[in-house]
Amino acid sequence: MFVVMRPNSAEEQVQNVVRLLSDMGARGHVITGATRSVVELLEIGNRLDRTKLERAPGVEKVLDEPAPILAADRAAGAHPLEIRLGGRATLGGRRIGVIAGPCSVESEETLLEIAVGVAEAGAVALRGGAFKPRTSPYSFQGLEEAGLQMLAHARERTGLAVVTEVMCCEHVERVQPYADVLQVGSRNMHSTPLLKAVGQQQKPVLLKRGWCATLEEFLLAAEYIIHAGNPNVILCERGIRTHEEYVRNTLALSVVPEVKRLSNLPIIVDPSHGTGRAHLVAPMSCAAIACGADGLLIEVHVDPKRAWSDGAQTLNLDEFRALMQTLPAFARAAGREA
Amino acid sequence: MFVVMRPNSAEEQVQNVVRLLSDMGARGHVITGATRSVVELLEIGNRLDRTKLERAPGVEKVLDEPAPILAADRAAGAHPLEIRLGGRATLGGRRIGVIAGPCSVESEETLLEIAVGVAEAGAVALRGGAFKPRTSPYSFQGLEEAGLQMLAHARERTGLAVVTEVMCCEHVERVQPYADVLQVGSRNMHSTPLLKAVGQQQKPVLLKRGWCATLEEFLLAAEYIIHAGNPNVILCERGIRTHEEYVRNTLALSVVPEVKRLSNLPIIVDPSHGTGRAHLVAPMSCAAIACGADGLLIEVHVDPKRAWSDGAQTLNLDEFRALMQTLPAFARAAGREA
Amino acid sequence: MFVVMRPNSAEEQVQNVVRLLSDMGARGHVITGATRSVVELLEIGNRLDRTKLERAPGVEKVLDEPAPILAADRAAGAHPLEIRLGGRATLGGRRIGVIAGPCSVESEETLLEIAVGVAEAGAVALRGGAFKPRTSPYSFQGLEEAGLQMLAHARERTGLAVVTEVMCCEHVERVQPYADVLQVGSRNMHSTPLLKAVGQQQKPVLLKRGWCATLEEFLLAAEYIIHAGNPNVILCERGIRTHEEYVRNTLALSVVPEVKRLSNLPIIVDPSHGTGRAHLVAPMSCAAIACGADGLLIEVHVDPKRAWSDGAQTLNLDEFRALMQTLPAFARAAGREA
Amino acid sequence: MFVVMRPNSAEEQVQNVVRLLSDMGARGHVITGATRSVVELLEIGNRLDRTKLERAPGVEKVLDEPAPILAADRAAGAHPLEIRLGGRATLGGRRIGVIAGPCSVESEETLLEIAVGVAEAGAVALRGGAFKPRTSPYSFQGLEEAGLQMLAHARERTGLAVVTEVMCCEHVERVQPYADVLQVGSRNMHSTPLLKAVGQQQKPVLLKRGWCATLEEFLLAAEYIIHAGNPNVILCERGIRTHEEYVRNTLALSVVPEVKRLSNLPIIVDPSHGTGRAHLVAPMSCAAIACGADGLLIEVHVDPKRAWSDGAQTLNLDEFRALMQTLPAFARAAGREA
Repeated sequence: MFVVMRPNSAEEQVQNVVRLLSDMGARGHVITGATRSVVELLEIGNRLDRTKLERAPGVEKVLDEPAPILAADRAAGAHPLEIRLGGRATLGGRRIGVIAGPCSVESEETLLEIAVGVAEAGAVALRGGAFKPRTSPYSFQGLEEAGLQMLAHARERTGLAVVTEVMCCEHVERVQPYADVLQVGSRNMHSTPLLKAVGQQQKPVLLKRGWCATLEEFLLAAEYIIHAGNPNVILCERGIRTHEEYVRNTLALSVVPEVKRLSNLPIIVDPSHGTGRAHLVAPMSCAAIACGADGLLIEVHVDPKRAWSDGAQTLNLDEFRALMQTLPAFARAAGREA
Repeated sequence: MFVVMRPNSAEEQVQNVVRLLSDMGARGHVITGATRSVVELLEIGNRLDRTKLERAPGVEKVLDEPAPILAADRAAGAHPLEIRLGGRATLGGRRIGVIAGPCSVESEETLLEIAVGVAEAGAVALRGGAFKPRTSPYSFQGLEEAGLQMLAHARERTGLAVVTEVMCCEHVERVQPYADVLQVGSRNMHSTPLLKAVGQQQKPVLLKRGWCATLEEFLLAAEYIIHAGNPNVILCERGIRTHEEYVRNTLALSVVPEVKRLSNLPIIVDPSHGTGRAHLVAPMSCAAIACGADGLLIEVHVDPKRAWSDGAQTLNLDEFRALMQTLPAFARAAGREA
Repeated sequence: MFVVMRPNSAEEQVQNVVRLLSDMGARGHVITGATRSVVELLEIGNRLDRTKLERAPGVEKVLDEPAPILAADRAAGAHPLEIRLGGRATLGGRRIGVIAGPCSVESEETLLEIAVGVAEAGAVALRGGAFKPRTSPYSFQGLEEAGLQMLAHARERTGLAVVTEVMCCEHVERVQPYADVLQVGSRNMHSTPLLKAVGQQQKPVLLKRGWCATLEEFLLAAEYIIHAGNPNVILCERGIRTHEEYVRNTLALSVVPEVKRLSNLPIIVDPSHGTGRAHLVAPMSCAAIACGADGLLIEVHVDPKRAWSDGAQTLNLDEFRALMQTLPAFARAAGREA
Repeated sequence: MFVVMRPNSAEEQVQNVVRLLSDMGARGHVITGATRSVVELLEIGNRLDRTKLERAPGVEKVLDEPAPILAADRAAGAHPLEIRLGGRATLGGRRIGVIAGPCSVESEETLLEIAVGVAEAGAVALRGGAFKPRTSPYSFQGLEEAGLQMLAHARERTGLAVVTEVMCCEHVERVQPYADVLQVGSRNMHSTPLLKAVGQQQKPVLLKRGWCATLEEFLLAAEYIIHAGNPNVILCERGIRTHEEYVRNTLALSVVPEVKRLSNLPIIVDPSHGTGRAHLVAPMSCAAIACGADGLLIEVHVDPKRAWSDGAQTLNLDEFRALMQTLPAFARAAGREA
């Protein structure tokens, strides 16, 4: 249980709640957020009087687990963030930003060709995995160090910001010199040590929603990062696992306006993983922009059929260019630019 | 198992497949679709030679269950349908159509006020339930006959087409004199006797996706109606049941472009049931249009807080008017009109 | 919203609640259950005082939708039911009952062979569909009348009670002369007109859980039947649709002890549909008995590979006999007999 | 795509497949398993001839992603494992093993009281988290080092093996001196760096199924550990996330017999997380044993209402003792001992 204080309640009021709890035989653990405090209840016995707590000065409400959002809480006054990716590009401002590139970094030549192509088409950042989370230990696990160097080289040549995945605490330090944005993938959204590690450095973090995570778990994963010291979190909806069979995942777009309502963080959409089908990427990109997304994350390859992973959901450069030309009309309809 | 013939294969080729099956100890049941035939395999033994069937003249492919789409199959040349709702309104053409109204018909006065309001805002049809499928037998079950009369009266006054739900075969005849479009609700999408019954009359059918139905089941439910004699089926995505908690259902919009690719039927989206939250209806309406929906189905009430059912997901007239003004920009971006 | 009265509260107390509501500008609709009444709130305005209602004499609690269980409510004193299937067999008593037979009735000869086989192995009832709910209109839809006659004939020969499915109101009357138990299938659990129809006759009803239904929806579907006049409802867990791929459905066995705790109705388990895999039927049957199920529903065929439907999940007679011999040890461990 | 060789096919046959692939313009990556090899296909072009590969000497079959199980493959002759936990206890043999203890280690005194209680009741190992994966950064995160020391102390006093969770690579080394079995929790089942890390040490690993993982992903997570060098993996079903609301998770027991059929690894069941409700733990424990589980993982606390986490699903010592007395009858019915 949690006693949520009103924004800017006095320290004295918080201490009063702690005393009340002590009188009721429980213990209160104070959590200090950006705009307000919350008191967690430990060792709750049978003398607890919920109504008394609800009526104490400065208390907004009493909640059961899990804990509320604190740092990114829009309702408590947190201002919408515009996050700089590296170079001139930002996400969360008026302009829609598109991050594009291959699933895995495969070779210097292929990566450069893709990077130049997506940059010319208007992308603001390059995605590409050097460490790959694969279902099977017998599948390709990524080029690691060599892949990171290729990404850095592509950045030099194109000016694109580089977004790449970290899968464990040890990766964070290794990836830092090469990346502008650190991605925490869907499989690792629940890994709290990793969330703390990316929170203890200052590059922006692209946090993908776990494929079975609730919205609350998603927002609280962001809170881990912010709480550890890094407020620059970009959320990414990438589809959830459902009973549907014609798609790899069900792209759950209503999370976009809900995140905008609850939190101050930018949110982008990955229609490549979110559908798993290349022919659905363009229409779902338009839908994402229409409901308020701040950007897109799209898998692009010079030859999707020869891609080492995720070929079925990857656009070729022609398809990507065509998509980029359809976005501005939807962005304008949504009061944005692209 | 099914042997799918090529479009327009000769009757002789179909009979040849049946003979082959007989020689292999199985029995073939011929199904004649709009543009091609399919042979279902019954009493399959261990003498079946799949490769031999695949190579027989006129055969396109051999499939395991469930049966393929036949009537509405876009790949086999079925032309996209534009369906007349009654009066001048259509769905499936260039113009986006919006169907709006209360969850339940509650009273003459309230219904008329809503109908006039949504008509003025640009809706083409009025929704409203006289027979209500409720989870509990102790909840309000609908005004039945009296509700139907109120709907017909609202139609006279506003010129709106009337869309109302039928829940069993007996309702089909009762509703006919009052409705322009018969709705089969999400709870009854799997009711094959009902699908056959609405297929044996000629008014258009609005078929809502079962909240746990696969895309294949959804399209085959439409096939039941078409196979029984009524080609005028309007599909409606209304959200599926998932692990998400902040919404009543997960609106699975990628079904829209996929239905457009596979089938010749129009598809609309119900963001009211598809989210269960009034504040999400407008953004998800825009997203639906952006990814190609032919229209929307929206719950509107003069006073959502006093609605007898579904208040939390219902717009008031001001909110509905505001939504209607945002749609044209998205429709134009999608190459349509609104 | 609902005001739930205590069991056996006075009529005067109920009327007092209705008056209170009227004073608060709302309307109360009284629902009279087996052991207590519930007042549904309609036309709720902003003058409602929830605390005042909670404190009114005879009131147990105030609930938001959906409505509570009334008729089968164990907590309100409803006594566990033992339901007679026809002949001497019962479900819900000390003895575990097994219902077995083919998915579809296919022919007189095959049905009799199966019926004799399962009877000798110890089954108490014969299952078999004459009306089949199929995903595709092009699949076999059942032998209808002819199938019903075969079932009745098998009953004469073996003494087994006959369980068969009804899919719409019209079927109820047609099936009555031939069946001992009317089955409402998973696809139709949400069909309230059908629930009312089987509630208006007196043969026991086997109600299968909808594959995406919550426990509350399942119990309220039973309430529809009981509320219409027929208390003899046997619940059946048959698996839910989840993300799992190696099974057709996920058998959700914890519903068994939970139903026993909440309701007075017997509950059986269908491991054939609940897994979709013949090799999982035996272990899941044992698990079902271990956690308190009153019986099993099992698909059996003389030659599963030649069955017209559901072959992959069907046992042959040898496998069924072997299963029946393993059950008594588990039944005894669970304090029952088999 | 993968070419799966027959068990014990000759090295020459494997190299022949690689040559064939090269001739078809693709690249083959050989993976050497315990009993057979698999060739992964990379850079597949349009000259690939699947039939030719299927017919090459020594080839069993050609599969699309994801990769097959190699190390633990029962069909390829891997022998069922009996894994020693530390001390005399084993899992996977004839005797059912029960691991019990609190969700979190809270204090020396409480832990000892629980440990002594569960040991006397017949548990073979003590569970307890020192590193806790919590949804919120504001919740209690575990006693860390101090908690590990308490576990080691409880082991000395009771002789119970100690099972505790590791959440990242760095934990593996820290936990080793204190634990007999390293647990990888549901949230981290997809963390491949962690799977590799626990695979590079020799203590047995308790691998919990991800709450949204497929069976294939679960078995392949085990393959990561085995492939890294540690064959001693104990699988644990702990419930999956579904639409069900009356339970915290849906315990999907059919995974137990399926794992037994496919793999040589022991599997236990966690009915505490698998239901989230203390009153469902006992019946689902019996069901787990009935369908073939090798053991149970159960949350026990001296005073569940005062537990710092998971109180609602935790048994007290009396309830645990009662459960332990009901298990032997089910174990015997399943041909085991308890």
